[in-house]
Amino acid sequence: MSESLRARLFAEIDRWRLIDPHTHINPHAPAAKSLADLLGYHYYTELVHSAGVSRERIEDPQIGPEEKVERLVAGIAPLENTIQYSWLIEMAQRFFGFAEERVTPTNIGQLYRAAAAKMSQPDWSQQVLEQTGLDAVFLTNDFDDPLEGFDTSVYVPCLRTDDLVFHFAKRDVRARLDARAQRPVADLATLRQAIGGLFEHFRARGARAAAISLPPDFAPAPIAPAAAEAALTRVLKQGLEAALDDRRTLSQYIFWTLAEYCAEFKLPFDLMIGVNRAVYPGGVYQGQDLFDSRVSLIQYRELFNAFPQVTFPISVLASVTNQELVAYSWIFPNVVTNGHWWYSNTPNYIEFDAAARLEAVPQTKQVAYYSDMYKLEFALPKFGMYKRILAKILAERFVIDRGWSEERALGLARQVLRGNVERIFGYGE
Amino acid sequence: MSESLRARLFAEIDRWRLIDPHTHINPHAPAAKSLADLLGYHYYTELVHSAGVSRERIEDPQIGPEEKVERLVAGIAPLENTIQYSWLIEMAQRFFGFAEERVTPTNIGQLYRAAAAKMSQPDWSQQVLEQTGLDAVFLTNDFDDPLEGFDTSVYVPCLRTDDLVFHFAKRDVRARLDARAQRPVADLATLRQAIGGLFEHFRARGARAAAISLPPDFAPAPIAPAAAEAALTRVLKQGLEAALDDRRTLSQYIFWTLAEYCAEFKLPFDLMIGVNRAVYPGGVYQGQDLFDSRVSLIQYRELFNAFPQVTFPISVLASVTNQELVAYSWIFPNVVTNGHWWYSNTPNYIEFDAAARLEAVPQTKQVAYYSDMYKLEFALPKFGMYKRILAKILAERFVIDRGWSEERALGLARQVLRGNVERIFGYGE
Amino acid sequence: MSESLRARLFAEIDRWRLIDPHTHINPHAPAAKSLADLLGYHYYTELVHSAGVSRERIEDPQIGPEEKVERLVAGIAPLENTIQYSWLIEMAQRFFGFAEERVTPTNIGQLYRAAAAKMSQPDWSQQVLEQTGLDAVFLTNDFDDPLEGFDTSVYVPCLRTDDLVFHFAKRDVRARLDARAQRPVADLATLRQAIGGLFEHFRARGARAAAISLPPDFAPAPIAPAAAEAALTRVLKQGLEAALDDRRTLSQYIFWTLAEYCAEFKLPFDLMIGVNRAVYPGGVYQGQDLFDSRVSLIQYRELFNAFPQVTFPISVLASVTNQELVAYSWIFPNVVTNGHWWYSNTPNYIEFDAAARLEAVPQTKQVAYYSDMYKLEFALPKFGMYKRILAKILAERFVIDRGWSEERALGLARQVLRGNVERIFGYGE
Repeated sequence: MSESLRARLFAEIDRWRLIDPHTHINPHAPAAKSLADLLGYHYYTELVHSAGVSRERIEDPQIGPEEKVERLVAGIAPLENTIQYSWLIEMAQRFFGFAEERVTPTNIGQLYRAAAAKMSQPDWSQQVLEQTGLDAVFLTNDFDDPLEGFDTSVYVPCLRTDDLVFHFAKRDVRARLDARAQRPVADLATLRQAIGGLFEHFRARGARAAAISLPPDFAPAPIAPAAAEAALTRVLKQGLEAALDDRRTLSQYIFWTLAEYCAEFKLPFDLMIGVNRAVYPGGVYQGQDLFDSRVSLIQYRELFNAFPQVTFPISVLASVTNQELVAYSWIFPNVVTNGHWWYSNTPNYIEFDAAARLEAVPQTKQVAYYSDMYKLEFALPKFGMYKRILAKILAERFVIDRGWSEERALGLARQVLRGNVERIFGYGE
Repeated sequence: MSESLRARLFAEIDRWRLIDPHTHINPHAPAAKSLADLLGYHYYTELVHSAGVSRERIEDPQIGPEEKVERLVAGIAPLENTIQYSWLIEMAQRFFGFAEERVTPTNIGQLYRAAAAKMSQPDWSQQVLEQTGLDAVFLTNDFDDPLEGFDTSVYVPCLRTDDLVFHFAKRDVRARLDARAQRPVADLATLRQAIGGLFEHFRARGARAAAISLPPDFAPAPIAPAAAEAALTRVLKQGLEAALDDRRTLSQYIFWTLAEYCAEFKLPFDLMIGVNRAVYPGGVYQGQDLFDSRVSLIQYRELFNAFPQVTFPISVLASVTNQELVAYSWIFPNVVTNGHWWYSNTPNYIEFDAAARLEAVPQTKQVAYYSDMYKLEFALPKFGMYKRILAKILAERFVIDRGWSEERALGLARQVLRGNVERIFGYGE
Repeated sequence: MSESLRARLFAEIDRWRLIDPHTHINPHAPAAKSLADLLGYHYYTELVHSAGVSRERIEDPQIGPEEKVERLVAGIAPLENTIQYSWLIEMAQRFFGFAEERVTPTNIGQLYRAAAAKMSQPDWSQQVLEQTGLDAVFLTNDFDDPLEGFDTSVYVPCLRTDDLVFHFAKRDVRARLDARAQRPVADLATLRQAIGGLFEHFRARGARAAAISLPPDFAPAPIAPAAAEAALTRVLKQGLEAALDDRRTLSQYIFWTLAEYCAEFKLPFDLMIGVNRAVYPGGVYQGQDLFDSRVSLIQYRELFNAFPQVTFPISVLASVTNQELVAYSWIFPNVVTNGHWWYSNTPNYIEFDAAARLEAVPQTKQVAYYSDMYKLEFALPKFGMYKRILAKILAERFVIDRGWSEERALGLARQVLRGNVERIFGYGE
């Protein structure tokens, strides 16, 4: 019973139009220009590299897109078991009429050309959105993004704040902020004004969230203004030479300030918790980060208590943190679960983590999934993966184990996949 | 095969009479007086609050039980997916003839009255025990509970010791201990005598365990008498103003003393490991505690080695600690697994954790489940949830995967559900 | 569909000849001499002890093998649920014609004699290898093992290095190293030469890996020669009396030196991460070690970056570390997953951990399983357990969920079970 039930639930879920609440889409070039934009995704470059191909060969600046694809495909066989590989095949089959189950040096040329033909059509990104059933995708915008030249009802701005919190000591980050504010940050007051200006700009352009990724050892705390001012003064003067303590104090202060502005501007603050950057500096672009699973949401206790009016959609990098996320979302009104992030975005972790959420977190407090994609084509296989797992969980744990009707199970699915995205982020308001 | 097999195993398991080895039942009012006693359970108030209803509205001291129920039901729809909600519906259906699958503002009045009618029957608590198939429930008694006026063979006393270990610096706790001992604690000798007196009293009234819940950073250790005496002197004088170090030293000393008395009085010492109290102080009553999953049983190494004659039934709050619990129970003769606690008491964590225990811990060293309930009605749906999961594990991992007969699987179920409760806690001796 | 599919996949997998890439086999006595060699395995002695039999009774030096078996069987009933018990029954049935599903005081005599009859045959170890389908087993050799008197193409040497890294302060360890090097270690230069000599000797005898087990708090780091020399001087003089800091510095230095030699000699360095030794010193032989699951591969960041030319097959003791292992193997070219170790070698942890690996780690970077056995007979039930789980994962997560053909699924199984062992360890080169 379970397999046909799953298929039936999936078929229905797969018909719905969705909103993708976290991506890295460039709204000026949302879809791929060639297969190299798909195979160049870090999931493939890092796995191909991990399986034996040198970074130099993959990132050779001399080569064009077709040769890049050829080089990657020459080293891709070791990845055939991975779920990431299945995304590639599903895109090839669904978008480009690919009829095989493996890409090989023999068939890649034909696939490359088939993709190129599709991608060269002027409305290709529209076609992808249509075929995928996406009404909108949320972006991840640099704080100084002008947010112009695209339809913000389809490409929804979100303010990414990592640079402000963790890289303010870098000259170019300060320069970008100064430019945006049209006057230099010279003290706490001008720093706060500059940040406030970003929020005003983003709100004016329809932004729906602020977002940040955080290392495992980060623990937000308020900083007294005098201490913040002192740290800021030294960081402004010394930049990256400033003492680590000063830089940390300032990170804390800026982070807390962002939360204050989220409260003022009524923006959810997406926290993506747990990444260690550049653990493998010899890795390919975007294939260098890892994590330490020894992190706890207790580190966010003070934040969650201090900002009851701010909604915090939380992503955790380590699946072992998911039970804490379930519990914190079950207790704190302002904490909601958000997707399955990166190293936890593989089927057995999704299945385990999503089941826990569906069983214990109020259905209104779960954002089921986001693609995290850089190119629109990836939403189809990534959401497809999630929807199949969701159908499995609903079939096994709700319809069979708990005697739910299929209709009721589908209602839950719709709520976490679509309804909550609209309500929590205020999409369409 | 698996679904009918599961159903068959469950049907048999569900016929057995059980003992609930950990509850918070008040033996003078064991069953609910109105539906407000069920919907007022923190699982509902905290989830309804988390889903949007203010604490003030839920805890308004002006309102009566029916209005409290109405207010909770008005905000309960977001919980319909949760397993906790399913407990409510199962109680409504099984005890009160409720025929629907959701409680709503429309149908709650009728349910309230149906429940009231049942609950007003003088033998209602007996009916609940009978319908649930419970022979006895273990209590959680304050150390100064007189333990009088109830049948201790059905309502089995257990000595809860959190106050002694973690709140001895509070004046009222010391006053309660002094009153119980009939003389003031003035030094280590009188402290030990006072504690010993509690054990004598509890033993005389048939107590079957001591119990305590512990924060993630607690690590038991013996304290030299001189150090304990010095700390005690200062805590007696300064109360909550005493230095944190003194209070911690005294906590350690009292904890270790309790273990010594458990040895002397041959009482198991239930350790419930991992809770952080009042993480969300703005939450509803009993809906403020959370946890930090970064805890290890290595913290209990010295304790387990020092007291080979004391059985430690261990509950862990974080499912990620369960593998350690499995391993420590497999190695230490005096460590046994105990139930699925709180945030780990949801189906997919129970299934994962229970399977690990059933596969690697001797069958005599597992206490399968306890309800942790405050009102008797909850044993039925909570044990029901566990028994369905147990039937699933036995069906899939023992009968199918390992070729066991159903009879053999049921033998294992009976051992962990009933036999071990009797033997480990000496029930019926 | 799933059950017959699983059975079909298992039947095919079970026909393959394999290599066991990590065991503790003594090549001079590879198979058991009596049933006491099987029931004396620490999994049985420690579980029987945990379930109530005293260490003294189990380890009584006065008794012979048959009485030892009788004593263990007298206390073995509590273990009947465990997977370890199922290994015993499977060995009894498959090797010795045992027809029952439990060993009891009544039937053990007959089983003992049936086993003795088989084991006394001069080619018994050959029979076991044949019946199990093993072409070779990797050993765990002390660093001063002469490696003589056995066929190193079947019993493949591996250099175990725990003593060098963690016990160099012990006089007898240094004496063994001095004897092997034929001159005393007197300074860093002679220490390095002595260690280099071990690698030369092991390479000459066909060694395929170095290996070490590591406590949860170990974090490799390079040590400046001057600091290492100073620490070595004091440890050579003071032995176990040397300061902990000196001993730790020296551990670090020796560990790093081993990695350097692995690079030079092109040997994989098996890291088995997470064990705390002698947590329960009152336990039976080899039944005293446990773990702290709070460990992270981030501790190995510097090592993995410093030795890109060394392959590190990694085993983690805690299942909660497996997701990090998956991620580190997916990013670092020189990190590969290795088996399911000890407390994680039970079905539900294997299933969860193996599924995660099969879904996200390149198929060429996974060593599926090793037995860790001390006697050859254990490979059959242990690999059998793993192969059944692998068949289940392939059936459910690849054939059903992802639409793979059975042939393709079997190709993946063969790669991780056999192909990778050959390639990663250079077996057969």
